[in-house]
Amino acid sequence: MYEKQCLMIPGPTNIPPRILRTLGAPAVGHRTPAFNDLIKDVSARLQTIYQTTNEVLLLTASGTGAMEAAVANFVNAGDKVLVMENGNFGERWGKIAGRYGAEVEVISGPWGEQASPQVLRERMKKDIQQEIKAVFVTHNETSTGILNDIKALRDAMQDHPALFIVDAISGMAVSPLPVDEWQLDVVVSGSQKAYMLPPGLAFISVSPKAWAVSDQVTGPRFYFDLRAARKSLLEKSTTPYTPATSLIVALQETLQIMQEEGLENIYERHAFYKKLVRTAIKALGLEPLTSDEAGSWAVTAVKRPDEIDVKKITKLMRDKHNVLIAGGQGQLQTEIFRIGHLGYVHVNDIIMTIAALERTLKELGMDIQLGQGVAAVQELLVQAGK
Amino acid sequence: MYEKQCLMIPGPTNIPPRILRTLGAPAVGHRTPAFNDLIKDVSARLQTIYQTTNEVLLLTASGTGAMEAAVANFVNAGDKVLVMENGNFGERWGKIAGRYGAEVEVISGPWGEQASPQVLRERMKKDIQQEIKAVFVTHNETSTGILNDIKALRDAMQDHPALFIVDAISGMAVSPLPVDEWQLDVVVSGSQKAYMLPPGLAFISVSPKAWAVSDQVTGPRFYFDLRAARKSLLEKSTTPYTPATSLIVALQETLQIMQEEGLENIYERHAFYKKLVRTAIKALGLEPLTSDEAGSWAVTAVKRPDEIDVKKITKLMRDKHNVLIAGGQGQLQTEIFRIGHLGYVHVNDIIMTIAALERTLKELGMDIQLGQGVAAVQELLVQAGK
Repeated sequence: MYEKQCLMIPGPTNIPPRILRTLGAPAVGHRTPAFNDLIKDVSARLQTIYQTTNEVLLLTASGTGAMEAAVANFVNAGDKVLVMENGNFGERWGKIAGRYGAEVEVISGPWGEQASPQVLRERMKKDIQQEIKAVFVTHNETSTGILNDIKALRDAMQDHPALFIVDAISGMAVSPLPVDEWQLDVVVSGSQKAYMLPPGLAFISVSPKAWAVSDQVTGPRFYFDLRAARKSLLEKSTTPYTPATSLIVALQETLQIMQEEGLENIYERHAFYKKLVRTAIKALGLEPLTSDEAGSWAVTAVKRPDEIDVKKITKLMRDKHNVLIAGGQGQLQTEIFRIGHLGYVHVNDIIMTIAALERTLKELGMDIQLGQGVAAVQELLVQAGK
Repeated sequence: MYEKQCLMIPGPTNIPPRILRTLGAPAVGHRTPAFNDLIKDVSARLQTIYQTTNEVLLLTASGTGAMEAAVANFVNAGDKVLVMENGNFGERWGKIAGRYGAEVEVISGPWGEQASPQVLRERMKKDIQQEIKAVFVTHNETSTGILNDIKALRDAMQDHPALFIVDAISGMAVSPLPVDEWQLDVVVSGSQKAYMLPPGLAFISVSPKAWAVSDQVTGPRFYFDLRAARKSLLEKSTTPYTPATSLIVALQETLQIMQEEGLENIYERHAFYKKLVRTAIKALGLEPLTSDEAGSWAVTAVKRPDEIDVKKITKLMRDKHNVLIAGGQGQLQTEIFRIGHLGYVHVNDIIMTIAALERTLKELGMDIQLGQGVAAVQELLVQAGK
């Protein structure tokens, strides 16, 4: 049915009608006092989301662009950097840093488990010469549905002076990530996840310590030069190059919506969705890829039921049942499917998704008792008074 | 959650995003060649929906305005008219005709059963003097969830020359109503039902026989004078007074959507929704007001479960579960609740509605097995390969 598709992928996420109407507003100029006020306002609101007094800069790019900025501005060719990798997006940190000439050491962990603070602690301890200049981590590893323990990873660095750089693209405003309290130097997020906007904007916070490093970095950067972005923001409340104006107008509206809901409530809602989805999955005899404790609040990865082709599951869900879910990525491409539950998702969306999954699996030959997953969700809802 | 409310009332119905975008288009003038083309186009498309070669006229009013036009243009004060009444909207025919000075004879039937063709047949047979000038019937009686058998009622008139006037406001484009084949003289429908538009436009078809009667009617009418509307349409492809321009622009888009789906497919979809909802209701131990055979394809009325206040059901559904359903009307106000399933409704919407109803009834103290209604819907879907 026309435009009744429900996006239950881990981004891009569903866009609220209130945002759609904002996106439909007439074009605005980007070198005007009104737009300067807008930039100032959204930058301040982003600081609230990030829980930081660091500048949060706007980039007209999707998340990977901001990841590149996090490398290009803080890593010199030849620098030793450490990447905590336990999924596709951890891998990406390593690839980008490598492209910029860094000497990349990747600490790989099993996909589907949290990156190990203990391993990081031991590695940093051994770095007596303090050769490691930056540690790259992933907050919410979208590819496996893992929520890494960022606080524990940060603590594992102890007094080591390396920058601590976080990809929070799919995790920001889903589960807590207080940037100042946890001393996170550079943190990246993207518009198409919990912000409920289309892709095209990315956000990056930079600590004073990171700015000091930035001044020593000599590698090439222009569009993603954060010093230019900072200067434009602080001196003129603007961006150095033409920004995605309509997305920034919509960003203000979405940050207003998020303020109305409240950050703590947003976290709580996502934690509850995680519980609903995992409970339903288990009620259907399926197995989440990750432990309950390590599971993402934004996306739940489910192990492929025996013999069933993941592509058939996602295709039937999409083409027959109007619910978009995701397959696996990288080494888990054919081993898991993933249900996103972040952003503009309501309990009713989760119910229809689980119902559609029940029919899909039954159609593919599994012995599914229809309604069982939905019933499990319903029980939790009633228990929670929701 | 902001704007995630699902409208499962029997109108106004959910509006597709494609229509919302059209409604968001800039204002247009109504005395322009482009708007004349638009009026011509939508009038022709409405004839396809109505399955008629009669003119279908546009009125800027909600459905009741078109009902008034159907009285004001075809009934003289003092005329004897017959109303087949088995619900709130049948009653309305009688009220309007009375207001225009007609001598109204109401044949009332039980609310929740079909109007009786047999009773009508006998009454018309007895009218040897052919004093009855018009018979008013209701296609889909929204207040009780009854689909009246319009063909049988029309046949029951045999050769009696009275006009046969149909309120098809909530039934048009939901279940078959071929205007020419069934010889329906005047047929009224409204934008906020299967047309998936906001309220504000009504449509009315007029047969040659009805036009002849109209010429003899002397009562006062101006805004709803259909002769003026006909003259404007035929001679200048316009409307006599300022029409609801943005709704007419959106009407073209919705008629295009309906053409893409196909009228037969639209009927089939609604028949299937009726089956899904009734099956779920019974699976939960509830009782539909009407028999399966007589049940509406647009709305299902459900008898109040013992001891439970209908208002509590609709309030919890709305305020807690984001699904809007309706209570009863008139003599059944506190006895039933009604689930609308017409227009821009997807199977997934029905699933979430049944799930929300399960939780609501359980919260109100009923012994409901959560998931049972949803499972019943799921079984039917799988059987039907949907």
